[in-house]
Amino acid sequence: MIDPSVPVATTTAPVPVAHRAAFFVSDSTGITAETLGSALLVNFPAIRFDHHTIPFVDTEDGARRVVEQIDRSADAGKAPVVFTTVKQADLRAVLGRARAVIVDLLAGHLTELEEAFGTDASEQRGQFHGVGDMERYHARMRAVEYAIEHDDGQSMRALDIADVIIIAPSRCGKTPTTMYLALQYGLLVANYPLTEDDFPSEGLPRTVAPYAARCFGLTTTPLRLSQVRHERRPNSRYASLEQCTRELRRAEDLYRRTRVPFLNSATKSVEEMSAVIMQTMKLRA
Amino acid sequence: MIDPSVPVATTTAPVPVAHRAAFFVSDSTGITAETLGSALLVNFPAIRFDHHTIPFVDTEDGARRVVEQIDRSADAGKAPVVFTTVKQADLRAVLGRARAVIVDLLAGHLTELEEAFGTDASEQRGQFHGVGDMERYHARMRAVEYAIEHDDGQSMRALDIADVIIIAPSRCGKTPTTMYLALQYGLLVANYPLTEDDFPSEGLPRTVAPYAARCFGLTTTPLRLSQVRHERRPNSRYASLEQCTRELRRAEDLYRRTRVPFLNSATKSVEEMSAVIMQTMKLRA
Repeated sequence: MIDPSVPVATTTAPVPVAHRAAFFVSDSTGITAETLGSALLVNFPAIRFDHHTIPFVDTEDGARRVVEQIDRSADAGKAPVVFTTVKQADLRAVLGRARAVIVDLLAGHLTELEEAFGTDASEQRGQFHGVGDMERYHARMRAVEYAIEHDDGQSMRALDIADVIIIAPSRCGKTPTTMYLALQYGLLVANYPLTEDDFPSEGLPRTVAPYAARCFGLTTTPLRLSQVRHERRPNSRYASLEQCTRELRRAEDLYRRTRVPFLNSATKSVEEMSAVIMQTMKLRA
Repeated sequence: MIDPSVPVATTTAPVPVAHRAAFFVSDSTGITAETLGSALLVNFPAIRFDHHTIPFVDTEDGARRVVEQIDRSADAGKAPVVFTTVKQADLRAVLGRARAVIVDLLAGHLTELEEAFGTDASEQRGQFHGVGDMERYHARMRAVEYAIEHDDGQSMRALDIADVIIIAPSRCGKTPTTMYLALQYGLLVANYPLTEDDFPSEGLPRTVAPYAARCFGLTTTPLRLSQVRHERRPNSRYASLEQCTRELRRAEDLYRRTRVPFLNSATKSVEEMSAVIMQTMKLRA
């Protein structure tokens, strides 16, 4: 029973914003449509977009069902916005019938390229059948397994074949960055934790010292590190701001002394860190 | 010394193809520019493109250096093609001076959206500072750690909080798919190997049976599985076509009997498998 003397909503009333449904429609995974579409929508901060990703739209029936879904989502006269990377012309024609703002992320550019190259585009429906894809799959599988085996200094076997060795104090972001480099680029990435034991010495930890040229360091801000460590071990010495400050200062000193390139992970996404590492270490996928 | 009676090149002469340099220029990681640009270029199979990804172009100086690099790469009158996702108008203007085919993957669409929404776009330079990004970072970090801890049935602790549990015989692609789901979508994904021991029984392995509704199966073709297993243990019974055929048949029977949705990983990329799993299990990032 609702007591009328108690206000139902006690949180601050939200500022009214315009709403719009945003669809990301793809004949494949939808990741590109969503990434690029979201990068565009972020420029309209006054509108709140409800995101819907619809992957694998690769039949006319499928496309028609998507059009129905889009048409149902029109909100108080606000047409939905649809980002599409669907390649087949007939499917694009079906999608074009939706009562929506349609942003075709491929078709217009394809025409640009046809004109620039003076050649017609051949309609490539292919997803994943070439030998190249198979090789890429194997490379990534191997890279992910290598990354798991060499996570957090667990195994030092086969460190000599690592493309890069990420070193950092605990909780600076070594593991997600390692996995991303393995999955996105198929690189062999090991990572090694810098602990208090490593700091009395002048150089890199003995295990990774022979591979100094392939080492890359991470650091972060003491506050950020302390927050992350508190999540794992609340109120521990390990998570204290004092301890985090000391470890990071020592790690940065070590990187500078041994000329190991490094970056601050506090304000960077995993993708950004990975791209910086690729660029700095001159690695190619 | 070269013996003139022996032909120097014994391989088949390559079909002559046109070459062009292709640049993917971004103020961030370059992943979107490369993905979408490559999807466009695949429609011109008669031209061989040399790919160059240039991330983090976020100053005028940086943009000018890129223009120099592009201009140097013009090959025998073939203008390079440049895909850009650079957001700042002044930097785009600098890039526009390159003697190249410039495909701006953002600017044109931004204008489309401004017209459709009847609002000007605010220039958002921001990369990674919002609370949402921080949360996303933590979610992914946690997800990757969960995935490592629960890889290959290593730990069955906290299986009750898994968003999805991938089950399959050894070498069907569980691990890379698990990592991709964790990194891309921040999902908690465990995976569990189906071994011979699991097949005498009628149902799912005891460990995962309580979470049947969250299980997803993988299968592949016997030939493919045998190839992959031969790489790990050449000429073993484990890698034999007979053994692979039997394990896959039993796994598929199990999936059908227990109504566990499954897919064949033989012709799919990790991204595609992950997107199918998201869609089938109705998961959201």
